[in-house]
Amino acid sequence: MRKIEIVQGILDANEATAEGNRAVLDRHNCLAVNIMAAPGAGKTSFILRTIEGLRPDTRIGVIEGDVVSTVDAEKVQGVASAVVQINTKGMPESCALVADMIQVAMERLPLDDLDLILIENVGNLLCPAEFDLGEHLRVVIASTPEGDDKPLKYALIYADADAVVINKSDLLPYVDFDMDKFTRAVRNLNARAVFFPMSCKTGEGVAEWVAWLRNQRATR
Amino acid sequence: MRKIEIVQGILDANEATAEGNRAVLDRHNCLAVNIMAAPGAGKTSFILRTIEGLRPDTRIGVIEGDVVSTVDAEKVQGVASAVVQINTKGMPESCALVADMIQVAMERLPLDDLDLILIENVGNLLCPAEFDLGEHLRVVIASTPEGDDKPLKYALIYADADAVVINKSDLLPYVDFDMDKFTRAVRNLNARAVFFPMSCKTGEGVAEWVAWLRNQRATR
Repeated sequence: MRKIEIVQGILDANEATAEGNRAVLDRHNCLAVNIMAAPGAGKTSFILRTIEGLRPDTRIGVIEGDVVSTVDAEKVQGVASAVVQINTKGMPESCALVADMIQVAMERLPLDDLDLILIENVGNLLCPAEFDLGEHLRVVIASTPEGDDKPLKYALIYADADAVVINKSDLLPYVDFDMDKFTRAVRNLNARAVFFPMSCKTGEGVAEWVAWLRNQRATR
Repeated sequence: MRKIEIVQGILDANEATAEGNRAVLDRHNCLAVNIMAAPGAGKTSFILRTIEGLRPDTRIGVIEGDVVSTVDAEKVQGVASAVVQINTKGMPESCALVADMIQVAMERLPLDDLDLILIENVGNLLCPAEFDLGEHLRVVIASTPEGDDKPLKYALIYADADAVVINKSDLLPYVDFDMDKFTRAVRNLNARAVFFPMSCKTGEGVAEWVAWLRNQRATR
C-alpha cells in the first residue's frame, strides 16, 4: 500500500498549499475560478468569451495549464491583463495543475491590479477533480457532442462543481444530447451547481454566465 | 524528488507486467487493442461498430475501464463474446488502466476462445499514454468537435498511436476542424500512424478500419 500512502500525502500537502493560495487571493480581493473540462470542450473559447463579457471594468489574469505547448496562452495573450503559462509535463510529475504550480504562477501575476483570475486546467475530467488549487469557484464545461451520460462516468468533477457550462449548444440539432437527462444526472451528484447552456461559437448564453460571475464577485 | 522516484518505479513495474501480459496473449494467439480517447469521443460506439464489422468469424472479448460506473460494459454486454469491467476508482489508486488491472481481467476472460481483445481505456488523453498494458496496438480516437489542435496539446498519446480514428465525421459541416491540419500535426509526432476518418453514428469509414484490423491480425 506504499503507493497509496504516498499519494495521500501528496493530496494532504496540496490542500495546505491551496489554503495558503486562497488566503493570498482573499487579501488581494481577487476571485479565482478553476475551469475544468475534457479536451476540446471549449475551455479557451470560454475564457475569451468571459473576458469579452467582463471588460473593461474587470481586470483579469489568466493562468494557462497544459502538459506541453503554449497554444492556449497565445490565444489569450493580448486580451487578458496578464497571462502565465504552466506546463505540467505529465507523469512522473503531474497530469493536472496542483496548488504548488498556482502558487508559483500567482507570484508572477500583479495581484494588486487584478479582480479575477481564470485558471484553465489541463484537458482532463479525472485528475483535476482531486486537486484544490486555492480557487473560489470550480466550473466544469461539458460539451453537447460528448453525450449526456458523462456525469455518471466522471462523477467527482461534477459533484464538486459550482457551475456547469453546457457548451456547443449550437450543435444540439446534430448530436444525441438530452439536456434534461444531463442536468438530472448532475443534480443527483450535486445540489448546488448552477447550469449555463452556452455556445462560445455564437455567444448564446454567455451573458447569463457573465452576470452570475459578476454577482459572485460582488456578494463574496 | 521522492515522488518522482516512486512514480518512476511504478512505471518500471508496470512495464514488466505489461510484457508478461503480452506473452500470455501471444501464447493464446489473441490480439489486444488499447483504445484511448477523450471523454465523449466515441470509444464505446467505436467498439460496437468494430464488433459488428468483425462478427461472426472473430471471437471478441472486451475489457471496459472506467473510474466508476458500468454504463459502457452494459452497452457491450450481449454483442461481445465476453466482457470484463474494471473500475480504476481514480486517485489515490489510478486515473488510467495499468497492466496489473489487465492481468486480472485476462484471468477472467476465456483466452483460448478469443481472437481479439478490445480494451476501452478511461476517457483521458493524458494518463493512459504513460502505461503499457501489454497490448499489441494502440488506437487513439479523436473527434471532430474537439478541434484540430489537440495533437499539439496531447502529444505523447498521439506519438505512440498505431492508428488514429477521426470520429464524428458527420459533424464536419458544423464544426471548425481542418482534416489536413490535424493529420499534419499527428504526422509531425508519428511517422507510422494510419488514419481512419469515421462516423460511428452513420457507419462511414468503419469498413476501412475493420479491414485494416483484420489484416493486422492475419499478418502478425
